[in-house]
Amino acid sequence: MSVAVEMRQLAREAKAAARVLANLSSQVKNELLKNMADALEAATDQLAGENAKDLAVGRDKGLSSALLDRLTLDTQRVRAMADGLREVAALPDPVGEVAQLSRRPNGLQVGRMRIPLGVIGIVYESRPNVTADAAGLCLKSGNAVILRGGSEAIHSNRAIGTILRAELERMGVPTGAIQVVTTTDREAVTELLKLEDEIDLIIPRGGESLIRFVSEHSRIPVIKHYKGVCHIFVDESADQDMAEKICVNAKVQRPGVCNAMETLLIDQAIAAAFVPRIVARLMREGVELRGCEVTRGFAPEIKAATEEDWDAEYLDLILAVKVVADLDAALDHIARYTSLHTESIVTCDYANAQRFIREVNSSVAMVNASTRFSDGNQFGLGAEIGISTTKLHSFGPMGLEDLTTRKFIVFGDGQVRS
Amino acid sequence: MSVAVEMRQLAREAKAAARVLANLSSQVKNELLKNMADALEAATDQLAGENAKDLAVGRDKGLSSALLDRLTLDTQRVRAMADGLREVAALPDPVGEVAQLSRRPNGLQVGRMRIPLGVIGIVYESRPNVTADAAGLCLKSGNAVILRGGSEAIHSNRAIGTILRAELERMGVPTGAIQVVTTTDREAVTELLKLEDEIDLIIPRGGESLIRFVSEHSRIPVIKHYKGVCHIFVDESADQDMAEKICVNAKVQRPGVCNAMETLLIDQAIAAAFVPRIVARLMREGVELRGCEVTRGFAPEIKAATEEDWDAEYLDLILAVKVVADLDAALDHIARYTSLHTESIVTCDYANAQRFIREVNSSVAMVNASTRFSDGNQFGLGAEIGISTTKLHSFGPMGLEDLTTRKFIVFGDGQVRS
Repeated sequence: MSVAVEMRQLAREAKAAARVLANLSSQVKNELLKNMADALEAATDQLAGENAKDLAVGRDKGLSSALLDRLTLDTQRVRAMADGLREVAALPDPVGEVAQLSRRPNGLQVGRMRIPLGVIGIVYESRPNVTADAAGLCLKSGNAVILRGGSEAIHSNRAIGTILRAELERMGVPTGAIQVVTTTDREAVTELLKLEDEIDLIIPRGGESLIRFVSEHSRIPVIKHYKGVCHIFVDESADQDMAEKICVNAKVQRPGVCNAMETLLIDQAIAAAFVPRIVARLMREGVELRGCEVTRGFAPEIKAATEEDWDAEYLDLILAVKVVADLDAALDHIARYTSLHTESIVTCDYANAQRFIREVNSSVAMVNASTRFSDGNQFGLGAEIGISTTKLHSFGPMGLEDLTTRKFIVFGDGQVRS
Repeated sequence: MSVAVEMRQLAREAKAAARVLANLSSQVKNELLKNMADALEAATDQLAGENAKDLAVGRDKGLSSALLDRLTLDTQRVRAMADGLREVAALPDPVGEVAQLSRRPNGLQVGRMRIPLGVIGIVYESRPNVTADAAGLCLKSGNAVILRGGSEAIHSNRAIGTILRAELERMGVPTGAIQVVTTTDREAVTELLKLEDEIDLIIPRGGESLIRFVSEHSRIPVIKHYKGVCHIFVDESADQDMAEKICVNAKVQRPGVCNAMETLLIDQAIAAAFVPRIVARLMREGVELRGCEVTRGFAPEIKAATEEDWDAEYLDLILAVKVVADLDAALDHIARYTSLHTESIVTCDYANAQRFIREVNSSVAMVNASTRFSDGNQFGLGAEIGISTTKLHSFGPMGLEDLTTRKFIVFGDGQVRS
């Protein structure tokens, strides 16, 4: 069977299963999730065995120790995966919620009911835990899912998929609800991206090149997030102790993630006081700084920033620093260089806080808080399926609700249009 | 200047204007809309003069009288266009609404604020009134708009654009907010569809071939609606007088639109009584019927339906009729042939009504009402920018709110992540 035929068949099974999933009760979905969690834990040894095959191939291929670590499934990680499914079971079910039901002048009652999207394709890279996490979130939101993980995790992903599907079967739910692509042929992705009649949404998770590949080849809507160039603007009126604490946290606490700060903007009115202080502190924390000319006037020890630095997502202990004339200049800089992820202002000024919140059009605008809070768990969405930096459908961290849409429902008693 | 360069420049001006538009008060936007309405009415003669050029070219090209009629701008139509803008001024402004603001355990306040999408591209066909309607809806929702109408209406569209932009200028709002593409080169569309960094959403309005062209060539998200194959299912328990009234209205009242009924499904338990009755009535109304074999058993005078009839959007006084075994068979037929637009059940049975509302996954599911009600005005959205039959972002008739998205807003007092 060709890859194209195989992908179409798998997507059709998913679409057929989606009709059933859309009407499962929350109770059945939660029971399934808990059973899946127990089954994964019970299969820890088997999973470790399959995972060992991936690790052996990875070592032969010369994968870095960081990549091998991300690939590893040990007892603790299997438990974390199972607990993730239990947490999703505990979240409220968004499906079926009716809002805005109101009576029109002619007596029709019109409202909107939340429904699953249908079939969701997830294209991701090495971590095998995404297989269980994404399957759990899609199941809870009533969607069938097609999971296409990285070839380096293929044995682990297959094994996880087999366990989850066995639980579907045991409860009489079509196994098409969770489809794990078992071919490592890259063509599988290109074929999936053509199936606009079967698949409703594609979510790519991974590096920028994967995401660009998926967006450019997909005929299906894609929710994506290229990179996070998060800014913090320290306003003239800022509490400088607070500003220091927030900047250190946003840059240093976990520099390799998308919600870490990459550019620091400082109001020129406080530059003489704040630049030397924050530079000294960040250098003690091991951060390499790259400043604009004005910044370097107050801290000659740091490197000069180039135009490329304002666009950079370092994902490392490196920070670009710029002194700006005022809030307007900060907003202009952000508007020009933003990746639409997260921006924060540190300020004690009410009007500036309000302006920043209103005028920054990134997916997250913050006042007096570390950009590191920008994620679904921290925002109370429960588990996160991804983060969107494009404005259509969802913008920002995405939870269960973002895997649904709303249809109109209309209750009449014989109305006709005149 | 090449078309590519010209489109990029126009889109960049729109993007710059969008930053200003996003922060205009409702008051200013409403004043602008009302001034634009007055200016259009004041320019009725000038508009008629430009429109006459389009009509002359159209006549030379041999456009049908129906097309020439759609193209015509007379005093009455200019007034209707102006009144449309006044109605949009009277609608509530969705921008800035904050919802779900709640306090997290660490004291952060997290909520979601409704913001404009940014820049919206509208690609449409002959009717020049779309120029003013779409500009008004985008302006009210804080979006810049790029309008690319059909070449046959180019003089009319340019004239409308000039009048609207003069009002922007008079109020000190960047004219980039309303961009009318003045070249009739088809390349303009292909170039616009590439500008994913400048344009946030594309809405094609017109025939299926236009919509397919736009979706296949766009790197920008597209909200689209190919066709409306609307079904009505007359359930065993239906009030047959009501069913007849609804079916006649849904098929006959305005057959050329997307929310007219195209397929009628009848429960076999009432087929012997209802088929002859509805067939006779619809034939009296001038409808051509195409039935399944069972239908023709009760009404031998009608044509036999072929497989293609179940997929057909006739947009005409033609109707496909099928007798089905029960509600499940009706739901199966709809799931297979639906265009995801609108489906209605006529029933007196509570459980069947509930199942139909829940299980039909089209953008609109109705009980005991004519499918002809499926539009934004009838649903209370105010003016309609279009209708979406894809599930991402919006599903069903789209109003002002559908031209916005939500960003997260976060108010802290120095929180850092541990």
